[in-house]
Amino acid sequence: MPSNALTVDQLDEKALLARIFPRLGPDTALLGPGDDAAVIAAPDGRSVISIDTLVQDADFRLAWPSGYRTTGFDVGWKCVAQNVSDIRAMGAVPTSLVVSLTLPGSTAVDWVEDLADGLAAGISALAPERCSVVGGDLGRGSQIVVTAAVTGDLEGRAPVLRSGARPGDVLAHIGALGLAAGGLAVLESSVDMTHPGGTDDQELAGLLMAQCRPRLPPVGSGPAAAAAGATAMLDVSDGLVRDAGRIARASGVGIDLDAGILRTMAASLAPAAARLGADPLAWILGGGEDHGLLAAFPPDAALPEGFVQIGTVHDGEGVTFGGQAPPVTGWDHFAG
Amino acid sequence: MPSNALTVDQLDEKALLARIFPRLGPDTALLGPGDDAAVIAAPDGRSVISIDTLVQDADFRLAWPSGYRTTGFDVGWKCVAQNVSDIRAMGAVPTSLVVSLTLPGSTAVDWVEDLADGLAAGISALAPERCSVVGGDLGRGSQIVVTAAVTGDLEGRAPVLRSGARPGDVLAHIGALGLAAGGLAVLESSVDMTHPGGTDDQELAGLLMAQCRPRLPPVGSGPAAAAAGATAMLDVSDGLVRDAGRIARASGVGIDLDAGILRTMAASLAPAAARLGADPLAWILGGGEDHGLLAAFPPDAALPEGFVQIGTVHDGEGVTFGGQAPPVTGWDHFAG
Repeated sequence: MPSNALTVDQLDEKALLARIFPRLGPDTALLGPGDDAAVIAAPDGRSVISIDTLVQDADFRLAWPSGYRTTGFDVGWKCVAQNVSDIRAMGAVPTSLVVSLTLPGSTAVDWVEDLADGLAAGISALAPERCSVVGGDLGRGSQIVVTAAVTGDLEGRAPVLRSGARPGDVLAHIGALGLAAGGLAVLESSVDMTHPGGTDDQELAGLLMAQCRPRLPPVGSGPAAAAAGATAMLDVSDGLVRDAGRIARASGVGIDLDAGILRTMAASLAPAAARLGADPLAWILGGGEDHGLLAAFPPDAALPEGFVQIGTVHDGEGVTFGGQAPPVTGWDHFAG
Repeated sequence: MPSNALTVDQLDEKALLARIFPRLGPDTALLGPGDDAAVIAAPDGRSVISIDTLVQDADFRLAWPSGYRTTGFDVGWKCVAQNVSDIRAMGAVPTSLVVSLTLPGSTAVDWVEDLADGLAAGISALAPERCSVVGGDLGRGSQIVVTAAVTGDLEGRAPVLRSGARPGDVLAHIGALGLAAGGLAVLESSVDMTHPGGTDDQELAGLLMAQCRPRLPPVGSGPAAAAAGATAMLDVSDGLVRDAGRIARASGVGIDLDAGILRTMAASLAPAAARLGADPLAWILGGGEDHGLLAAFPPDAALPEGFVQIGTVHDGEGVTFGGQAPPVTGWDHFAG
């Protein structure tokens, strides 16, 4: 494979862009890439917008102790997942991404092309409605840094904020919980994951993929939660306890997590966790990056399909786990 | 100054955000920072969007040969300038920024606060209409990387693209030309710029500031160009010859730059250039980062106030300088 030898410092910006853009799939913008800026539709007169970044050696490693090598595809997919998830958590539909790539000159062009493929596949799987990459930026740096800003359309609905939960509400969740944390433990373990697709160890390989290429809840989950009267919602990116705490703080309420249900969820991860010497409950309560949706609903609301009650909202403050202090907190990008 | 000792690795994400957000000025969004995403107004049912990144050691150095130390304020200001400029080049009005900061743990908190001040001052000076920082992201990395995505409102107008220039059009420019390149030469020189505000050398200090805190053309210039019938427009970020080439290529035309006028502009920079051993015409033709607006107008159009004719559009291809091959090209983020 001679093209393996080609690195980005051997191409100018135009040549590298020419390798990226054809891979990104159909353009859904009113005016797509190629000018100073793109123009996207905002049919209800508003745009939802957020930004999120993946940094080499902070958010991913190119090579892990397990032997797994993070692919460009993984990084592109994950960039889409974490950005789209923020839009879904408002009850909106993702409409565009703009992507900035900071790349060391030694980065293989193959890896960058694979990243473009991962962006396209991530959009196709996680934001199939009408999203595309409408613009970007390329630059040099000492580490790979991938930043995307994402826009969304509320389709006339009010956004579901973090601040509306009320005492008596039901706390419910949809999506993976603890899997991405389990995957991180796999990546950092001595289990051989050099070729996870070829391993017989489907349990650990599945966790690895949940970390490297997270799936999101079904695309209609956010709007369905809004339609069901969700009083608060966010995506669980930094761990259940930490993110539940954000709803509690923003809403001025307390949240008690259901220890029974969450311990049952943890039990299903116990065999894998035991092999890695890990506590599956810590994955459930403290693991981030699963990007499930956590929402509060009025006590009489019918939970939308797929949402599972995992707690209750009460008059008070902070987050408890079966009435007690939680055994773990969660992920902070700056703390120790 | 004891707070000089504080670095970002001594704060958690929430504490660092608490130091940044109060400095950012009034929030103009429908829903501002603090939730999974922000909501901005898009009154005409469209949003213009772009993204741009500044990377330490690629786009700026913390310490220059001249002794100047890039301030957080400079980086914040420049982040606003280069992003807002892309919106203005479409004929739109900037409406929001989302900003992602990747910071080494050793970064002084003072420097980050200064960056927030620079964002606020940049918005106040360069995008005073209704723009604010509506969201952000914080993470760790080995270098400072500042990425912003910016949105804009076309106010019902059609965007001014790069692709509409026609043979016979007048090519005109508004804004600085060559100053930022001169400033880069100052920064990289042995002239002592440790304290540019205190130096008697106002000429070189002025160039330095044009590089570190670029000014943009008056805020109404983009819409005025659109109203005057501009057939193509972009902002000059990578050098006049290179960016004129983008209009030429997108429009399927040739552009001849007026050697007389551009040599006259260069002459005004000649004293400073001579002191630095530089060619002022190379600054004019090849320097980027001034973020003036370059636009084509029909031959019978009255140029809006401040625009200066610097060339003509003809049937053909490529960019010439007084009918000859230009002596310099411009800046490419990846080429050698």
